[in-house]
Amino acid sequence: MSAGFATWHALVDLALAEDLGAGDITSLATISPDARADGVMIAKQDGVISGIEVAAFVFERIDPEVSFIARVVDGATVKAGAEIASIEGNARSVLAGERVALNLLQRLSGVASLTARYVAEVKGTNASIVDTRKTTPGLRALEKAAVRHGGGRNHRLGLSDGVLIKDNHLAAIGGDDRVTKAIQRAREHAPHTAKVEVEVTTLAEAREAADAGADIIMLDNMSVEQMAEAVNVIAGRSLVEASGGVNLASVRGIAGSGVDLISVGALTHSAPALDISLKFVIR
Amino acid sequence: MSAGFATWHALVDLALAEDLGAGDITSLATISPDARADGVMIAKQDGVISGIEVAAFVFERIDPEVSFIARVVDGATVKAGAEIASIEGNARSVLAGERVALNLLQRLSGVASLTARYVAEVKGTNASIVDTRKTTPGLRALEKAAVRHGGGRNHRLGLSDGVLIKDNHLAAIGGDDRVTKAIQRAREHAPHTAKVEVEVTTLAEAREAADAGADIIMLDNMSVEQMAEAVNVIAGRSLVEASGGVNLASVRGIAGSGVDLISVGALTHSAPALDISLKFVIR
Amino acid sequence: MSAGFATWHALVDLALAEDLGAGDITSLATISPDARADGVMIAKQDGVISGIEVAAFVFERIDPEVSFIARVVDGATVKAGAEIASIEGNARSVLAGERVALNLLQRLSGVASLTARYVAEVKGTNASIVDTRKTTPGLRALEKAAVRHGGGRNHRLGLSDGVLIKDNHLAAIGGDDRVTKAIQRAREHAPHTAKVEVEVTTLAEAREAADAGADIIMLDNMSVEQMAEAVNVIAGRSLVEASGGVNLASVRGIAGSGVDLISVGALTHSAPALDISLKFVIR
Amino acid sequence: MSAGFATWHALVDLALAEDLGAGDITSLATISPDARADGVMIAKQDGVISGIEVAAFVFERIDPEVSFIARVVDGATVKAGAEIASIEGNARSVLAGERVALNLLQRLSGVASLTARYVAEVKGTNASIVDTRKTTPGLRALEKAAVRHGGGRNHRLGLSDGVLIKDNHLAAIGGDDRVTKAIQRAREHAPHTAKVEVEVTTLAEAREAADAGADIIMLDNMSVEQMAEAVNVIAGRSLVEASGGVNLASVRGIAGSGVDLISVGALTHSAPALDISLKFVIR
Amino acid sequence: MSAGFATWHALVDLALAEDLGAGDITSLATISPDARADGVMIAKQDGVISGIEVAAFVFERIDPEVSFIARVVDGATVKAGAEIASIEGNARSVLAGERVALNLLQRLSGVASLTARYVAEVKGTNASIVDTRKTTPGLRALEKAAVRHGGGRNHRLGLSDGVLIKDNHLAAIGGDDRVTKAIQRAREHAPHTAKVEVEVTTLAEAREAADAGADIIMLDNMSVEQMAEAVNVIAGRSLVEASGGVNLASVRGIAGSGVDLISVGALTHSAPALDISLKFVIR
Amino acid sequence: MSAGFATWHALVDLALAEDLGAGDITSLATISPDARADGVMIAKQDGVISGIEVAAFVFERIDPEVSFIARVVDGATVKAGAEIASIEGNARSVLAGERVALNLLQRLSGVASLTARYVAEVKGTNASIVDTRKTTPGLRALEKAAVRHGGGRNHRLGLSDGVLIKDNHLAAIGGDDRVTKAIQRAREHAPHTAKVEVEVTTLAEAREAADAGADIIMLDNMSVEQMAEAVNVIAGRSLVEASGGVNLASVRGIAGSGVDLISVGALTHSAPALDISLKFVIR
Repeated sequence: MSAGFATWHALVDLALAEDLGAGDITSLATISPDARADGVMIAKQDGVISGIEVAAFVFERIDPEVSFIARVVDGATVKAGAEIASIEGNARSVLAGERVALNLLQRLSGVASLTARYVAEVKGTNASIVDTRKTTPGLRALEKAAVRHGGGRNHRLGLSDGVLIKDNHLAAIGGDDRVTKAIQRAREHAPHTAKVEVEVTTLAEAREAADAGADIIMLDNMSVEQMAEAVNVIAGRSLVEASGGVNLASVRGIAGSGVDLISVGALTHSAPALDISLKFVIR
Repeated sequence: MSAGFATWHALVDLALAEDLGAGDITSLATISPDARADGVMIAKQDGVISGIEVAAFVFERIDPEVSFIARVVDGATVKAGAEIASIEGNARSVLAGERVALNLLQRLSGVASLTARYVAEVKGTNASIVDTRKTTPGLRALEKAAVRHGGGRNHRLGLSDGVLIKDNHLAAIGGDDRVTKAIQRAREHAPHTAKVEVEVTTLAEAREAADAGADIIMLDNMSVEQMAEAVNVIAGRSLVEASGGVNLASVRGIAGSGVDLISVGALTHSAPALDISLKFVIR
Repeated sequence: MSAGFATWHALVDLALAEDLGAGDITSLATISPDARADGVMIAKQDGVISGIEVAAFVFERIDPEVSFIARVVDGATVKAGAEIASIEGNARSVLAGERVALNLLQRLSGVASLTARYVAEVKGTNASIVDTRKTTPGLRALEKAAVRHGGGRNHRLGLSDGVLIKDNHLAAIGGDDRVTKAIQRAREHAPHTAKVEVEVTTLAEAREAADAGADIIMLDNMSVEQMAEAVNVIAGRSLVEASGGVNLASVRGIAGSGVDLISVGALTHSAPALDISLKFVIR
Repeated sequence: MSAGFATWHALVDLALAEDLGAGDITSLATISPDARADGVMIAKQDGVISGIEVAAFVFERIDPEVSFIARVVDGATVKAGAEIASIEGNARSVLAGERVALNLLQRLSGVASLTARYVAEVKGTNASIVDTRKTTPGLRALEKAAVRHGGGRNHRLGLSDGVLIKDNHLAAIGGDDRVTKAIQRAREHAPHTAKVEVEVTTLAEAREAADAGADIIMLDNMSVEQMAEAVNVIAGRSLVEASGGVNLASVRGIAGSGVDLISVGALTHSAPALDISLKFVIR
Repeated sequence: MSAGFATWHALVDLALAEDLGAGDITSLATISPDARADGVMIAKQDGVISGIEVAAFVFERIDPEVSFIARVVDGATVKAGAEIASIEGNARSVLAGERVALNLLQRLSGVASLTARYVAEVKGTNASIVDTRKTTPGLRALEKAAVRHGGGRNHRLGLSDGVLIKDNHLAAIGGDDRVTKAIQRAREHAPHTAKVEVEVTTLAEAREAADAGADIIMLDNMSVEQMAEAVNVIAGRSLVEASGGVNLASVRGIAGSGVDLISVGALTHSAPALDISLKFVIR
Repeated sequence: MSAGFATWHALVDLALAEDLGAGDITSLATISPDARADGVMIAKQDGVISGIEVAAFVFERIDPEVSFIARVVDGATVKAGAEIASIEGNARSVLAGERVALNLLQRLSGVASLTARYVAEVKGTNASIVDTRKTTPGLRALEKAAVRHGGGRNHRLGLSDGVLIKDNHLAAIGGDDRVTKAIQRAREHAPHTAKVEVEVTTLAEAREAADAGADIIMLDNMSVEQMAEAVNVIAGRSLVEASGGVNLASVRGIAGSGVDLISVGALTHSAPALDISLKFVIR
């Protein structure tokens, strides 16, 4: 059982359809229908693995008789050369699933691995690394899990599970007390089970948000100095989240400002794939 | 009309479902149902744009009355600050589509932009930059288009539209003449409309493949010197494709070996997103 | 644009498929293909309307040339005899959509109408009426909207948008401090954007939950007296929600205990349909 | 194998998607991934059970390794406290399916239970209780089965499996002999395998319909006296069905008029859910 | 609005996905993105047209701006050379839909044309030509309509809209009075709105079926003489349907036996496509 | 594992939905829920079998406990009376799948059988029989496999896996050198993995195409004499394919012209179904 499985099951079907099309003409022409294959998935870089379950599902979808045995669990840190899974079954079936399974596993492990690097950078500080909604279409739940596998935490999963009032909402409301009004409206109309977060760009807005009882205050594109001041002003009344301009070079400095959370879009929108290959011996 | 639309239409639906869930509780609570929004999508980095059509489709899917007007065409080179599209409509609708539209547009423009950098590197050589099947699940057709928008060319789109005999196929066939046998089987059994490509790792295999009439020969993980020799041996009888270990630093050297094609998995599996934002004014 | 539309669009397709099957053999046999129909949807009972948008969508899905004009908005209180919408178009098309559109509109208006009765009962108290996840499969977002149309508020929309620790979770954790431990785990591992709610059955648990910093405490199946005591003990540190054994006779008494929220499963699992009919004149 | 399974399988997927969203954040945070759960589904009210198969399917869909063992069969009459099923498996999986499974089982058992009450009311008379097309979207086949489990009979399942000429069809045809003409057209053009039913509102129409050879005549909103007269006039030439204004108080009187069938929309559009809970022990 | 549209809309999407794959590489390479096309669909054989609506839908699905104008209606008899539709729009869009639209139109027109030949054969007799469930997967409703367009009538549309007791059901019931018992069970348990048909292979069974009140009796693989006797024995108490061994040479003889209906599987399982082409001029 | 399975799995679901609708009312009424059935699928004509896997899938989809055991493999030549498969399981399940399974198996075996007849006709010549894209919607991959089972070869599977420049493309390009220009554009812009085929109608065009380096030249509707001349002119520089006006009477003559390939649309658009029945004994 896994989070968001209805969506990613559907995505796997789309991916198989676009890759297999009307069939793998190479295997049909060159591999006997009865040939068997033994394969191993091997990491070719150091990193953190995520996506074992989805890789297994790809082969199960193509041919339930393919055996997929994981050698590591999601969240495992591996060295180049480590065996991640072994696969045994009909050779045409294994070849048919290879690319789609690797595409998913490499991408998710790339997310986990990049997250782990950010998490390592802020080690010893108060700050947690959190993700955003800038995820790959169809892979939201899996990429959010990959962030957890890399040691990060999750921001809201989608638009229905947390209030986040951004610049555009504030512009829509207008008036000098727009921050306060926005928070009040959210308290009144949104599910009482959701926290209310508001994005601010100035110290004055940060103070207004804290005064109005925001559960979380997101500091958007502030300098480290401004962030430290904002943390002072908010004074523990709300969680404080830093956002914007975060990279591996800047993240530790940002953490030093005393914020509780640092959200990093790159975890999911720009993580390079972790290199993983499938090698097998046809018997 | 666009390539592969059945798949990516479905993907957009999955992406909207996972992002919207049971609804955007922030907009429902803070934005009036009748509020209108004017927005512009703006590039925040230099790059090449791809994905205009899919971004437009996202908004159409949510609310056909949202007006999306492209300001550039796919393949356009833009500077930071350039306006990519303008969007006008119901404020809740625009906010509901914002993230999914940007996630797609940023990713595809990232692919086009990275491709353009590789293409620039090999300018003046004989070599073309081509993509692989290492694409984002569900986005195969769009990412293949993005590669074209960046000036690259496409390798086969999926398993059904080209024969590519790889190490695993050769292992399955076995024997000293496995390269020759594999090519013969493909000629006999695969559709006569498909070219036959074979992956080789040695000069001897390259020669055998050319002798056996391979349409394309892929040199896997060879040094530049080996590639140059292979080009000599093949002597124009087959197209020659370099693969493996290609990056922005190495690509021009590889092109110098005289190969016809250089395939680069990173174009689609590791392209960082191009930063694009949507800013709007609520009236 | 509407909450959760991806799901209910799919549901409308399922409903049309199951009702139309291979076609409406009565209309095909007795109605000319060119016949036109004018119809009106009329409330046959007093109530609150919800579902206008989905009724319109049903006809649009069958035949985009059918004109559906709403005469009231969602949330409108109507008297028996009120006209809810007028419909004009090809007679076979209108007949094909009639039943599915009414089935949806009647059900959603039933939810809104029942909610309004509960809301009226607690008028003047501190308590809000909230829904549960006991919704009709596929109609979650629409029924949650219907509750809002009837004057109620929404509890979490699904499992991903709020932490709710129930008896089964507590049993799984075990130990005398299981309430505290559960809350701590949720704080540590769940998205920081989600509130933490815990279900308690005794005063002692209620106190422990408040001490441990629960955002919301659900009092499960307590007597009104116990609830009043719990409200005292919690003393404003957490929101307090009453749950279990709520009906139209008991709800005002429960509200008198001082709880903030009263959740009512019957709003969505047992609301009788509001009687609405479609009458039309074939020209 | 079950009726209409293609539709309700799809509905279960929609329901799981809307409930699980991107994942159950409570279980992820508080329950160990390896925890096991033993649970029992227990009736909390007297009633008739329906939907065992679909409840089992929900868990199978989430995690095929969850064991679901039915303790009663569909159609069983149970007392409050009766065990309906036992469930064993991964604790997160069981929790993930609980709500959707119960939502379906409670609804279908509610339909069966209400049907049984109507059937009991007309015991000893000639009349059968039959359902309508006023079913929950996506649950048509399952609710029709629930009616059978409660002792009722099914009216046509959808628009393609029976001709039912209603007021609107008659208006469309027009003329003094519209009932006769409608029946003739249906005989000529509809599949010869379908019975022809016509809805009438007066004795004169009832006579005309019988004379014209209607297979079934529906008496719409007539008084019991009018119905008795109509039964006389029709004199066994057609089946006679009463429709409109039927409730538990009126149904026996209607049956006394001599009609063959009494159709009751409330069986499916207004049946309150049967209260069923899932309690489990985490080992 | 059209019968069974949910299914065939889905089928069109499958067909486009399998034909277009990741895109039409010929048009992309050789046709300018702005080129326009004017085309006409022309019958290349005499026949009866069916499927205009689905052909139009194919182009609408690919590109709503393609204009598709029908020149004939479904059911029209055309001569070779007749123009069936004109199509105008983006050249790539028209080319992308051409094959799928023609595949559907040719197949459905083939069914209508073959039906018309059977209908012509039995002209002047009492018998109607009816179809079976031996239809192309996904095209049931459209092929049933094509049969009507060719002048035939429809048998039941699927398993839920008519009782048809066949040899296997009778074997399952067993006993000397199995025909009678089967009919009784159907009367008792099947919807009262469905007619009861039974397949018989002997005169004795035909008599038993008529005595037991079968609505329709299917004579399976009888000789014309046996059929005439059966018609005599049944004596108007049930409709009589001939089935098995029907072809264009035998059908008139069978009609002469006095049966009411002759069902012909070949109408849908073996109709040759009607030759139709799309020719266009690129401007 | 099988080619294009994502599409045909979806098609099977559509087919089952349209046939079963809300359930098989005959079996429900007359067959006990526990009855078992033993059945055999038997060929009633000589032919070549194709579609075993999809027939098995139909029953698996309905009821995984039905046992389906193939007695022949795809591609087997059978005589009337041969047993193709045996089926054992719940009687209602077997009856529910019977028609859909047979509809698919009969159609695919029809394609394989007709292909085998064409292949037999050209035995001893140089020519191969190839299919076209004139396939049944949703069955492309299965029908292409059926052609292979009958001894034929496959043309391109869809629009994305081979360049085929037809009359309409040439008209769009225009100019006296349009054949040359078209081939050049395809070389430049289409994937380098795809062969380039061009359709010609005159000897001059055939010569131009060969001179321009076409990989394959399709001779459209030429006489056998013209084809022989074209083969001479092309002189082995390109593969030569005959198309148009091919039937069982003409095919051997066409083969005699020396062409390499003969494409036959009728293989898939007009193959009569192979007669296969399912007979079973209820225990």
